Amino acid sequence: MASLSSRKVEPMKVIEAPLFKFCPMCGHPMVTKRPQDDVRVRELCEACGYIHYVNPIPVVGTVPVCGDRVLLCKRAIEPQKGKWTLPAGFMEAHETLLEGALRETREETGTEAKGGQLFTVIDVPYASQIHFFFLAEITQLPTNPGPETIEQKLFAENEIPWDKISFTTVRTTLEHFFEDRHQGSFMLHQYRLDD
Amino acid sequence: MASLSSRKVEPMKVIEAPLFKFCPMCGHPMVTKRPQDDVRVRELCEACGYIHYVNPIPVVGTVPVCGDRVLLCKRAIEPQKGKWTLPAGFMEAHETLLEGALRETREETGTEAKGGQLFTVIDVPYASQIHFFFLAEITQLPTNPGPETIEQKLFAENEIPWDKISFTTVRTTLEHFFEDRHQGSFMLHQYRLDD
Repeated sequence: MASLSSRKVEPMKVIEAPLFKFCPMCGHPMVTKRPQDDVRVRELCEACGYIHYVNPIPVVGTVPVCGDRVLLCKRAIEPQKGKWTLPAGFMEAHETLLEGALRETREETGTEAKGGQLFTVIDVPYASQIHFFFLAEITQLPTNPGPETIEQKLFAENEIPWDKISFTTVRTTLEHFFEDRHQGSFMLHQYRLDD
Repeated sequence: MASLSSRKVEPMKVIEAPLFKFCPMCGHPMVTKRPQDDVRVRELCEACGYIHYVNPIPVVGTVPVCGDRVLLCKRAIEPQKGKWTLPAGFMEAHETLLEGALRETREETGTEAKGGQLFTVIDVPYASQIHFFFLAEITQLPTNPGPETIEQKLFAENEIPWDKISFTTVRTTLEHFFEDRHQGSFMLHQYRLDD
């Protein structure tokens, strides 16, 4: 198996938080300055005092395992349309990391997965994201993937389409999965990825 | 030592994301409806197409250890002003979890900490937050805490002011820290807290 750094794929597309031109509370034009008692410059409204904070966004997904195979989805949407991915997406308000990971798995594969051990925690600071993948088990083959998926397939380790994987966090999570399985135990992997 | 559930303190104050009345891109009034190709109702702008997504916010902090004692800060600001806390705060854009945790430690205690092992990952779904605490080591006693801290002090285990701890995630992180130290090894603790 190749080392973690030898298989280069496209980094995740960076979606920068857009600048706010108007205050979402009162409609007044926003300005960029340092709020009182803050050490950072923010976008804020001098009319009503609203401050626009921008925080990293959690991305949650699973490694859906069925026997000795892993379920991958071929992406029907950009970015990385046509590439293979693990089911994952942006965490929604008022859910837990695991709830979000299982919801994304349900939405993108049409199947219920049972989770799951937290397996990778990956900082992606250039994109202001953190990616979390959980180990999950599926007991039935999905038949009806959602609109974000062209097709899905169970892959044994020697069948993984390494040159057609969507994102670096997906690739490194799969590499850690097979390495840990060879060693007989799954541990938490925490690391950062840079562009 | 009391069990994890026997020491009740105030839950974290929930700061709901405010409704957007005006589009931050074009200033047009926002509406609440389900965007095309989405399964959820969002706030969106029918004039320019802007969609306001709300995602959980990561909170990052440390357990700053000096010898056999832990550094706690007495909060100078609401919520929970006057209560003792571990240094922690909202993660900022373009930093990693650990970078954010060490920055918050620097801002709230005035000292550099060396980190660190990821120790607790706590879902707080009712507040749409995830709290991450890292183990960290401090080698010098801080002398000049920031404006968010009234005073700070190193506490041995039998000195911890359990009835004056600020937040449940701080209390349970401290409880896990001392339990793991008694057992001789520190492991990752992942759990959820409900109101």
